[in-house]
Amino acid sequence: MNLILLEPGDCGPDGRVRLTDPRRLRHLHEVHRAEAGDTLTVGVRDGRRGRARLERFEREAACFTLLDLDQPPPAPLPVHLVLALPRPRMLARTLEHVTALGVKQLTLLHTRRVEKSYWQSPELDPARIHDHLVLGLEQAGDTMLPTVTVERRFRPFVEDRLPALLAGRRGLLAHPGMPDPCPRGLSEPCTLLVGPEGGFIPYEVERLREAGCEGIHLGERILRVETAVTALLARLF
Amino acid sequence: MNLILLEPGDCGPDGRVRLTDPRRLRHLHEVHRAEAGDTLTVGVRDGRRGRARLERFEREAACFTLLDLDQPPPAPLPVHLVLALPRPRMLARTLEHVTALGVKQLTLLHTRRVEKSYWQSPELDPARIHDHLVLGLEQAGDTMLPTVTVERRFRPFVEDRLPALLAGRRGLLAHPGMPDPCPRGLSEPCTLLVGPEGGFIPYEVERLREAGCEGIHLGERILRVETAVTALLARLF
Repeated sequence: MNLILLEPGDCGPDGRVRLTDPRRLRHLHEVHRAEAGDTLTVGVRDGRRGRARLERFEREAACFTLLDLDQPPPAPLPVHLVLALPRPRMLARTLEHVTALGVKQLTLLHTRRVEKSYWQSPELDPARIHDHLVLGLEQAGDTMLPTVTVERRFRPFVEDRLPALLAGRRGLLAHPGMPDPCPRGLSEPCTLLVGPEGGFIPYEVERLREAGCEGIHLGERILRVETAVTALLARLF
Repeated sequence: MNLILLEPGDCGPDGRVRLTDPRRLRHLHEVHRAEAGDTLTVGVRDGRRGRARLERFEREAACFTLLDLDQPPPAPLPVHLVLALPRPRMLARTLEHVTALGVKQLTLLHTRRVEKSYWQSPELDPARIHDHLVLGLEQAGDTMLPTVTVERRFRPFVEDRLPALLAGRRGLLAHPGMPDPCPRGLSEPCTLLVGPEGGFIPYEVERLREAGCEGIHLGERILRVETAVTALLARLF
């Protein structure tokens, strides 16, 4: 937690903030070892960052005074990430990694090799997803909450929604065995598609390439989804 | 498990292999859903890769016949990674990520902000480390086991061992706020140093730069160690 993320409603008109949720209180206590008088980095969700002084730190509440809120959040990555739904534990970690790296648009997609049971996971509860996004923002010192959409059917996504995601943007399909290596240091916006463990099936690769995606690869090594996504984003931007 | 890693001693002179360890048997059963007659990718530790036919798959043993072993392992990354010891769960995952990415030389280093208790973790047991390295190799389809060394004191490492690690190699110190962005697409070998959560302290940064390391950064976002290491390796190579 390199930034304490405040909800717009947390901040009183007098610049006072009172936090009562156990997760942040525990983190302030155990990791920051925060004490009254400390100055900490804060940010308002979807807003600016700044500093706040911890005025009182009790068992059930931490009371802050905002000192300033004059820093913009770090720049986002110009990417829309379309990710085949990973298994639940991997999803949780991947949401945190990609949020920390600066992804702001994320689509979770069904493909043939996504196990149907993954769609029943409690990790897909919007509140759980939100919690992982917040952890990623707090890690990176960011305030801009990503938007996560869910596409439970492959064909309607490719036929009806993908064309708009590729309009004026480069489409990149990351898949082992594709012709070109992952490009480095892009400046233009792109839509990046990443398959599940086991990859896209040939039919899906064909449909995505017909839709205008360029096939790219990360080399001969087969990586776990969370490793591959981080490696792709770090190489692309 | 994209490759079944065999110990040199597992292979009989007649090309027969018998696996009895519960982890690999369970994985063959649950993930590969392997059946007698299937052909699977195998590799011999520190040797070549090839294919084997599963002849019999019983509750307590899987018996294979080697068909060929004529593929070299994927190319390693030309990097010696020096990593401040992460907290135990992060260490376990980071060992798997960096092994899958192709790191072959890894040093785990004590620095001021490494909690002393981490050095007592059972995750530092050589057998536990070995297990994570094997998982990384199996994921990536690699056979070459990385070498992991442990340095429990910062100064003797920097004064006595680091000069040899930097001889004829570029030294890169990844640390927030350093002057230059992480370079892209290196071809020369390098030694990459990554600090703990909370970073190196200023004294450590000074010593490492005096020793000849160039300070590099990944931008304004503060990343978890496992995300940062993957991002650095993907951008460098």
